[in-house]
Amino acid sequence: MPRKYFDQKLADLNRSMKEMGAVVDRRIGETMEALKNLDKDLAAEVVGGDREINQVEHEIESVCMNLLALQQPIATDLRVIASCLKIITDVERVADQCADICDIIQAGEIPAQSSVVNHVVQMLETAGAMFEKAMDAFIARDVELARQVCGMDDQVDAMFSKIVLEVCGTITENPQSVMKEVDLMFITKYIERMGDHATNIAEWVVYMETGVHPDLNDGRI
Amino acid sequence: MPRKYFDQKLADLNRSMKEMGAVVDRRIGETMEALKNLDKDLAAEVVGGDREINQVEHEIESVCMNLLALQQPIATDLRVIASCLKIITDVERVADQCADICDIIQAGEIPAQSSVVNHVVQMLETAGAMFEKAMDAFIARDVELARQVCGMDDQVDAMFSKIVLEVCGTITENPQSVMKEVDLMFITKYIERMGDHATNIAEWVVYMETGVHPDLNDGRI
Repeated sequence: MPRKYFDQKLADLNRSMKEMGAVVDRRIGETMEALKNLDKDLAAEVVGGDREINQVEHEIESVCMNLLALQQPIATDLRVIASCLKIITDVERVADQCADICDIIQAGEIPAQSSVVNHVVQMLETAGAMFEKAMDAFIARDVELARQVCGMDDQVDAMFSKIVLEVCGTITENPQSVMKEVDLMFITKYIERMGDHATNIAEWVVYMETGVHPDLNDGRI
Repeated sequence: MPRKYFDQKLADLNRSMKEMGAVVDRRIGETMEALKNLDKDLAAEVVGGDREINQVEHEIESVCMNLLALQQPIATDLRVIASCLKIITDVERVADQCADICDIIQAGEIPAQSSVVNHVVQMLETAGAMFEKAMDAFIARDVELARQVCGMDDQVDAMFSKIVLEVCGTITENPQSVMKEVDLMFITKYIERMGDHATNIAEWVVYMETGVHPDLNDGRI
């Protein structure tokens, strides 16, 4: 495969990654809307669209495998392709988490007009911003931006701990509502994981550009 | 790189994967013991050992990258190496989940002598068996065994739902204990994810051997 053709293929791969990121960005936005308004129809759409993302993941994976087989890349090219292979898993999992949250919204047991729900929406907003920034860092090959994403994860973790305490308080006051509140707790856990996946993506960007793994979160995700 | 030398390198990679799996198997066993006896010291050991697994993950990753660069493998060889790159992430995450569970045990808030704890231990036993079987399937390149692992995930999911209901019942009866019970809920969630990661590993085994992604769980992990 001549170099020019290979560069074209790498550019195509980059564009596919950008498109996949944009689709998942939209899913996060829709999940936020569905959560704000406890909108079951919108939630159903997000759940229904999950297979599409899995399909895109496998398509990009197959492009990466072909590039590895046909071009036999080395050094930076190899790191870029291997990083794409890893990043698509994290991107796909963020979409899974949107679908998991929307599954719960669809079941319709979340308490309406709760101040906790507002905090959960804010947390989702922050995790969503982390994801968007992580994908921007990937597209722009921007190590500095990637490091910023990792720094934001502490914020999401702090929000998580605060919401868990709030939910526990609500349950103590009104133990009959425990099932609904537990749903909210799991949603919060899914959002915390989104932040971890965004951090993972950012770490892959650092590896891709520097060849060194940063392990900027404590390695647990 | 001559074929014989490459085969030697692939055998080394296989052995490293087997060793990593065995270490994580032990971690699951230790986590089970720590949970049964609410043993904070053992829990601290599991938490302390987590960095070691991250290190092993990066070592194997680097072996895979070198094989991709130096040997420029195609077809089955390429699928094996790419699958290893993916599987080590799932293996490492199972170790993370052990550490996450042990973090909670260390904090010392889990209610002792609870029947729910026994059920959580049983669930961990099942998820642990899934993980062991998934790694066995990888080592033996056994597609049939891999498919069995995927079938076991329903069992873990059913245990998860049952325990969540049990915990909610306990909270309703004794709302003051909500913080402790919520800890147990998160532990149960971590174990449910272990089952998902074992399923992922099994799916990679099927892909590695057949070239086709099974998506045997519904694609959400």
